[in-house]
Amino acid sequence: MSKKGNLFVVTGPSGAGKGSVLAELFKIKENIFFSVSATTRQPRPGEKEGINYFFVSKDRFEEMISCNELLEHAEYVGNYYGTPENPVNEMLKLGKDVILEIEVQGALQIKKKRPDAITVFIAPPSFEVLASRLRNRGTESDEVVAMRLEQAKNECRYMSDYDYIVINDSLEKAVSDLSAVITAAGCRSENVDLRF
Amino acid sequence: MSKKGNLFVVTGPSGAGKGSVLAELFKIKENIFFSVSATTRQPRPGEKEGINYFFVSKDRFEEMISCNELLEHAEYVGNYYGTPENPVNEMLKLGKDVILEIEVQGALQIKKKRPDAITVFIAPPSFEVLASRLRNRGTESDEVVAMRLEQAKNECRYMSDYDYIVINDSLEKAVSDLSAVITAAGCRSENVDLRF
Repeated sequence: MSKKGNLFVVTGPSGAGKGSVLAELFKIKENIFFSVSATTRQPRPGEKEGINYFFVSKDRFEEMISCNELLEHAEYVGNYYGTPENPVNEMLKLGKDVILEIEVQGALQIKKKRPDAITVFIAPPSFEVLASRLRNRGTESDEVVAMRLEQAKNECRYMSDYDYIVINDSLEKAVSDLSAVITAAGCRSENVDLRF
Repeated sequence: MSKKGNLFVVTGPSGAGKGSVLAELFKIKENIFFSVSATTRQPRPGEKEGINYFFVSKDRFEEMISCNELLEHAEYVGNYYGTPENPVNEMLKLGKDVILEIEVQGALQIKKKRPDAITVFIAPPSFEVLASRLRNRGTESDEVVAMRLEQAKNECRYMSDYDYIVINDSLEKAVSDLSAVITAAGCRSENVDLRF
């Protein structure tokens, strides 16, 4: 009986586990839509148009920027990445909740553009846990791990600017907390369409 | 890791089923405290001091009113009923979520006194369902049922003044929605105590 869906911006530092939390959420939660980003980078083997990304040319991406078609965008290693606003609005109108998974820098930009967005910061339970998670990946040099930790520390400094903080200590608890945030938003009185 | 508990005011018209929803919630939710009202009426057989009510004299109740010790109070069939504020604050300080089940008239009064309170309106899915629930109780005359329906209609008119509306169509869904509202409140960034 929800009037329209809610827009959730989910972010968190590298190693906080936002990818795992969202993958589990997707399994248990109905009626949610994960926003698909646009990018100018080449598709990797197995990646599908409209599923993993919308693959667009640099000209088209710059047109999207100038026509204000993007909720946010960033450049990374010579390629553009961004969130087209139109599909998001279409899903919201259909009553679906929309989730944007986004880097920390972009998340608060969206809040400025869309004050209706509900921002969620996925946090590690402590800096020590985060450090051990990043080290245990075993894929990165000590130097890269140290750099990621420094970045995570900076990102966590602005945690309190988000609407919600979900601590990813146990994955199950984090998924259930994020699910509760989404369910509760649907129960906000302005979102409930009920007349007597 | 919640700093302190949240105060929830749960209300709804007669027949919406707030009693059943709260009874089920109590079974599944940890760390919540149901506020106990004070009253000047005589204990009924089996009722226990501090569990069902705080039983107090009329003089003591009037003292509580004049000393501003109550979050709200009302007179009903010659007896006073009210919510002592002190035990509520003690539980909140201990990090417990506190639930006040209250009649519709009192709920928005509390919001004025305590803007930190989160108000939840338990609504029937439709007026027709409410009417059939009240009739099926079979304990009240058609006249009383008609009066309760009229009152419910009036009460539902102010639904949108509450923070959340939980529709009690399926009991299980209503309990899970209310539980989500409580969990989500604990994840609000101002309620999360996490430092890096």
